[in-house]
Amino acid sequence: MKIAVLPGDGIGPEVTREAVRVIEALDLGIAMEEALVGGCAYKAKGHPLPPETLDLARASDAILFGAVGDPDCDALERHLRPEQAILGLRKELTLFANLRPAKVFAGLESHSALRPEVAGAIDLLIVRELNGDVYFGEKGFRQTANGERQGYDIMSYSESEVRRIAHVAFRAAMGRGKRLCSVDKANVLETSQLWRDVIVEVAKDYPEVELEHMYVDNAAMQLVRAPGKFDVVVTGNLFGDILSDQASMCVGSIGLLASASLGERQTAHGTFGLYEPIHGSAPDIAGQGLANPMATILSAAMLLRHSLGLAQAADRIEAAVAATLADGVLGRDLGGTAGTAEIGDAVLAKL
Amino acid sequence: MKIAVLPGDGIGPEVTREAVRVIEALDLGIAMEEALVGGCAYKAKGHPLPPETLDLARASDAILFGAVGDPDCDALERHLRPEQAILGLRKELTLFANLRPAKVFAGLESHSALRPEVAGAIDLLIVRELNGDVYFGEKGFRQTANGERQGYDIMSYSESEVRRIAHVAFRAAMGRGKRLCSVDKANVLETSQLWRDVIVEVAKDYPEVELEHMYVDNAAMQLVRAPGKFDVVVTGNLFGDILSDQASMCVGSIGLLASASLGERQTAHGTFGLYEPIHGSAPDIAGQGLANPMATILSAAMLLRHSLGLAQAADRIEAAVAATLADGVLGRDLGGTAGTAEIGDAVLAKL
Ligand SMILES: CC(C)[C@H](C(=O)O)[C@@H](O)C(=O)O
Ligand SMILES: CC(C)[C@H](C(=O)O)[C@@H](O)C(=O)O
Repeated sequence: MKIAVLPGDGIGPEVTREAVRVIEALDLGIAMEEALVGGCAYKAKGHPLPPETLDLARASDAILFGAVGDPDCDALERHLRPEQAILGLRKELTLFANLRPAKVFAGLESHSALRPEVAGAIDLLIVRELNGDVYFGEKGFRQTANGERQGYDIMSYSESEVRRIAHVAFRAAMGRGKRLCSVDKANVLETSQLWRDVIVEVAKDYPEVELEHMYVDNAAMQLVRAPGKFDVVVTGNLFGDILSDQASMCVGSIGLLASASLGERQTAHGTFGLYEPIHGSAPDIAGQGLANPMATILSAAMLLRHSLGLAQAADRIEAAVAATLADGVLGRDLGGTAGTAEIGDAVLAKL
Repeated sequence: MKIAVLPGDGIGPEVTREAVRVIEALDLGIAMEEALVGGCAYKAKGHPLPPETLDLARASDAILFGAVGDPDCDALERHLRPEQAILGLRKELTLFANLRPAKVFAGLESHSALRPEVAGAIDLLIVRELNGDVYFGEKGFRQTANGERQGYDIMSYSESEVRRIAHVAFRAAMGRGKRLCSVDKANVLETSQLWRDVIVEVAKDYPEVELEHMYVDNAAMQLVRAPGKFDVVVTGNLFGDILSDQASMCVGSIGLLASASLGERQTAHGTFGLYEPIHGSAPDIAGQGLANPMATILSAAMLLRHSLGLAQAADRIEAAVAATLADGVLGRDLGGTAGTAEIGDAVLAKL
């Protein structure tokens, strides 16, 4: 079993380091190998996703990813910017299913901007499609009939693209509360109409799952009003980008949220995937040992569960994080004073 | 001065009636004429936006709009559904600038799902472009190379489309807190890159306005975390649809929020526009006199201010609504018991 470790930029390396320590401490016989990604890869090798990084990822069972993003690279052409590394990995490795669970840890309800009783009820999973939509269609600049510059991007989904993410979502719903909310904008978009048609078709395979369709504008409202009403939400790449970030912020403790991006390839014990905290590279606090590594540690737990079939080890890590939080070891993002290594040590002590 | 009154479906007619009573009570010498729109227009005339309705709108200085949406019409082909009436009016009448102010009325902070101190700080204006983006580009179904069905929609913006909405937004910022946040997804979309380029260019005409760019996923987070930090937000049609509904729900009292959709045509005393509450047709409570007409009454105030140059009359209506709320006359949406006509009477009494 082999993990490609891609720490990336900003706080990526320091939070990834703690997650690696946690995996090592469990002594699971997993090989780990590091490679450059993002702004640091551009600086060292001229590209945010160098071929050797992609090769390492392909040769591994899973990827542990830190964060990318570097203000030094803001002025580069689009294809050289750090974000292109994550888009490239998703596309090249067919990582089409992004799973983002959002749930408030007991005792941390007051960190949300939502009223504690609203935030405390959140326990949802967003399943976001990652390989299609307006992200990867033809795009560019062209001239209009009257000689103006126009920017354009083609949004699209084909049946098979929707079908494979639908199955992931319905299966996830079967393993949870058996309720699925599919979010689209079918009153305006034909892409959404196709999305909805295919979701309805796939639903026949999962008669136990209660399916609801919701327009994206309404979903953005309901995620504020009553986020506790959602179980599993499935949506396209663009709406998923917006709603999953909104849902994370509803939870309030963005330094605690993990994510998985799963592919089609099966490994010996699970599904190939990339795992990353949902927070970014936070260049303002990078290198100071201030960042909370819990989201990355929890991403490592998801990795063990989904890609390596090590559910027990994953449970142990999650329990250790919960116990550490219960002890009041809180990072600055949660109003505490614990630094990166201190939190890592505390989680290790609980294991 | 003439207003086209388009009550529409569901609770549209009953809330519009109260707004019409308020305008009449002010005795401003305004002619008002009604026409059918939405599901009721489809049922009576075979089209959600009949030509005579469009003609009336064209011949007026402003439109007072209730709501469209009727479950009976859900199975119709897209171009016959009630929502097409509002999309058609926006496009045919070049109503390109949607203004959605969101502010908590004093004393109503506790109706938001956000903590009262977070909700109480909200005082923002969303300026949403309404005539372009993926809403009105080429769209349809096609076959992929391997014979699958694919839905597609072309997203685009040209320079002049962005420029005219940018000017509306910068001018609005000049009249408020002089801060403008432009929301896009320029790290992924070329449409957004063009949007950003033009916003930066137009900013040169407004050196006093502090301009910030924000990605839409981050904006959705910040609208939860600290919505009080925004002054004016400008964004495209699709992102504006999502974010403006999210912002409304942050305020908590969606039965109190009004909106204006302004065109390019100048009337004798202002700008031609359409005014509507941001809530929908609420078929579940239609015809029972339960709906809160305040959002429509406040939309009428916006109409008087922006299209008819009657700022004083608009101020009087807004003050009367605030006084009615301060008296504790609350609709069911705010946990009160006051019905539609009762609220209308109370506002009239305050005038
Ligand atoms: C960095 C960016 C391209 C990316 C996206 O939009 O998918 C990010 O926001 C995310 O959600 O992972
Ligand atoms: C009904 C629908 C087409 C419309 C839109 O998406 O613009 C509505 O959601 C709105 O915001 O006015």
